[in-house]
Amino acid sequence: MPALTRQDCLALDAADPLAGLRDRFDLPEGVIYLDGNSLGALPKGVAERVEQVVRAEWGRDLIRSWNTADWYGAPGRVGAKLAPLLGARPHEVTITDTISVNLYKLLVAAVRMRPGRTRILCEAGNFPSDNHIVDSVARQFGLEVVAVPAGEIAAAVDGTVAVATLSHVNYRSALMQDMGAVTEAIHRAGALAVWDLAHSSGAVRLDLDGTGADFAVGCGYKYLNGGPGAPSHIFVAERHQAAFDQPLTGWFAHAAPFRFDPGFARAEGIRAALCSTPQVLSLIALEAALDAFAGVDMGALEAKGRALGDLLIRFHDERLTRFGTAVASPRDAARRGSHVSIALDGGFPVMARLIERGIIGDFRAPDILRFGFAPPYLRFADIYDAAEALEAILAAGDWRDAPVATGAVT
Amino acid sequence: MPALTRQDCLALDAADPLAGLRDRFDLPEGVIYLDGNSLGALPKGVAERVEQVVRAEWGRDLIRSWNTADWYGAPGRVGAKLAPLLGARPHEVTITDTISVNLYKLLVAAVRMRPGRTRILCEAGNFPSDNHIVDSVARQFGLEVVAVPAGEIAAAVDGTVAVATLSHVNYRSALMQDMGAVTEAIHRAGALAVWDLAHSSGAVRLDLDGTGADFAVGCGYKYLNGGPGAPSHIFVAERHQAAFDQPLTGWFAHAAPFRFDPGFARAEGIRAALCSTPQVLSLIALEAALDAFAGVDMGALEAKGRALGDLLIRFHDERLTRFGTAVASPRDAARRGSHVSIALDGGFPVMARLIERGIIGDFRAPDILRFGFAPPYLRFADIYDAAEALEAILAAGDWRDAPVATGAVT
Repeated sequence: MPALTRQDCLALDAADPLAGLRDRFDLPEGVIYLDGNSLGALPKGVAERVEQVVRAEWGRDLIRSWNTADWYGAPGRVGAKLAPLLGARPHEVTITDTISVNLYKLLVAAVRMRPGRTRILCEAGNFPSDNHIVDSVARQFGLEVVAVPAGEIAAAVDGTVAVATLSHVNYRSALMQDMGAVTEAIHRAGALAVWDLAHSSGAVRLDLDGTGADFAVGCGYKYLNGGPGAPSHIFVAERHQAAFDQPLTGWFAHAAPFRFDPGFARAEGIRAALCSTPQVLSLIALEAALDAFAGVDMGALEAKGRALGDLLIRFHDERLTRFGTAVASPRDAARRGSHVSIALDGGFPVMARLIERGIIGDFRAPDILRFGFAPPYLRFADIYDAAEALEAILAAGDWRDAPVATGAVT
Repeated sequence: MPALTRQDCLALDAADPLAGLRDRFDLPEGVIYLDGNSLGALPKGVAERVEQVVRAEWGRDLIRSWNTADWYGAPGRVGAKLAPLLGARPHEVTITDTISVNLYKLLVAAVRMRPGRTRILCEAGNFPSDNHIVDSVARQFGLEVVAVPAGEIAAAVDGTVAVATLSHVNYRSALMQDMGAVTEAIHRAGALAVWDLAHSSGAVRLDLDGTGADFAVGCGYKYLNGGPGAPSHIFVAERHQAAFDQPLTGWFAHAAPFRFDPGFARAEGIRAALCSTPQVLSLIALEAALDAFAGVDMGALEAKGRALGDLLIRFHDERLTRFGTAVASPRDAARRGSHVSIALDGGFPVMARLIERGIIGDFRAPDILRFGFAPPYLRFADIYDAAEALEAILAAGDWRDAPVATGAVT
């Protein structure tokens, strides 16, 4: 196979059926943005919609907007809008709080559904915040935590396990789990599955209902482009909603919040997964951002993300290995989410220099250069240009010596 | 005393040293807004600041804004900006999550600091969401809940009580507790005090440090005018921070979140009260909104709120009692927060008609017409005009018969 050229990439862009989606985003000039897996780009229309919420709904209509603009229904409404991207039904998803808070709710609810079981199984190497929450829940219920790599969850689950939790796509490696097979194994042991979709929602095709998932959490500010710190989504399969018993029993989870009854009566359906008053500006920004997915086939989107990743890996193999780098993500695109990690000892200054050039990825200590490929707004030529810049920085060689700002590259 | 006239109110406005604060808000024409205790009005400058966050910080600078715009430091920075309004030190306050979530954190942390004690004392008649959270924490730790009216907390606390929680200002009656005396009684019994400041922060003078408060939560979207669902604030007294052990151990509460260690190491100081990524749009809106309090003496603000409330009560006593209404708030302004509740059997349609006329208060089932007096933007003449409108509706008498929309008046 002849070496990859920029011309090849331009041809791929010309043939890309999703190329037009880029016009749905306001992207800054001179930037190749490979960090949409950390903070997604700004979709067009969001700024205008947020301004309307601030000036008209808040400023002019004031408290009435809870009814007239249906802020009250917004968590469920936005959840229903998101549900098709997750392969879920509208009444199985709502938008609230953060991933960590929602994971806490789900784990406590799951543990309560499996009384007598003594262990929580979790993914070693999962995003640490998830496992901190696992540890906290286990401590509260006197349970043992067992951490194994994601690929070993199916084999490790047994009748002592109440709940197993793992990421669908790992935040470092991008290794993607087979949700159906793993969930089935968890269910065979009588346990419950809680999936973290942080690096999946909006990037890859999901089928929560088809795979039999019990519970899931996901992120609004990565591939869904909902804005900085956008609220999380939470999925509770319909069959579990009647017994769903989470501990953050705030008034938005109450069957009749405006009756102001002293006792708690759990709301029916997905509302039971809420806790309290939503942060409306951030929530409505996410709602508007989801317009960028209107009419998009998630299978096609996933395929494009994989193709973008394959391109970087091919470039890497052809031109970068001489610098001591290694691909730290699955080479099999079918087992990979929408980012590619390249390992490089002491590579932090390399990422800092890429960012100085307007090529924005991120770094995950100790040695991971992470490049995210948000399929709606990235072009194949962008990947080529980014990889060439990476090659130039590595070839210059002085990145090992020269000091760079050592602040966090989030 | 001669009956109150509108001219008297205009004279009060002319002499009001805080009258100029009204110019710091964008208020809609034709509205008298007496619901700032539910959703505060829009301060000038907030819409522009939010637009800057969306278009420039998110849209243009993207992920870099976590550092360059210091989104990462925003919870603590905004907490420090708020702290003087609470009588707290800057490092004792941060902004995160919702009141209910924060109350859960504080109650669990407090229970862990008092092992062996078997009861949680709470305020009967407190905002229900608070007591639902109390019940949830008690259930998890196998504790007994004892609910007594706020005024009986001091007498009811004993050596079996781990923690007592109550509102400083009750959401219905506006009855204000003596924070110093109640906290002292709680401490005498060896228990801890968790105060809910939902109807206090931004309306009345607070002295968390001076009164010896242990923990507190408060609301960003009422008298602080932070926007719909603005994030909550949480106070942990400096002396408790080293032992503060809350269960929502997300990565923002980690000592080194970007080291991605598998184990949880609690951050020092108030950061341990965070959980995960903040909803930046809502958080920065609150930060900008706090500019409306720049240079404001909270004692003077509290005094104005009381005077506004006294005015409504005087009007009520002079002209409304014939309609069967009753003041359901303390007549002693020193024991009252910044709203006045008027009880009226079946009064919901009365509030609906007031709202139709652009006089916006709210209704709390079954019988409370609630009028909030946000001191920065309300005029004495506004209260007079609202009360006259109320009188006209009551005098017309047909509100009992005519149907009105029965949707929630939040």
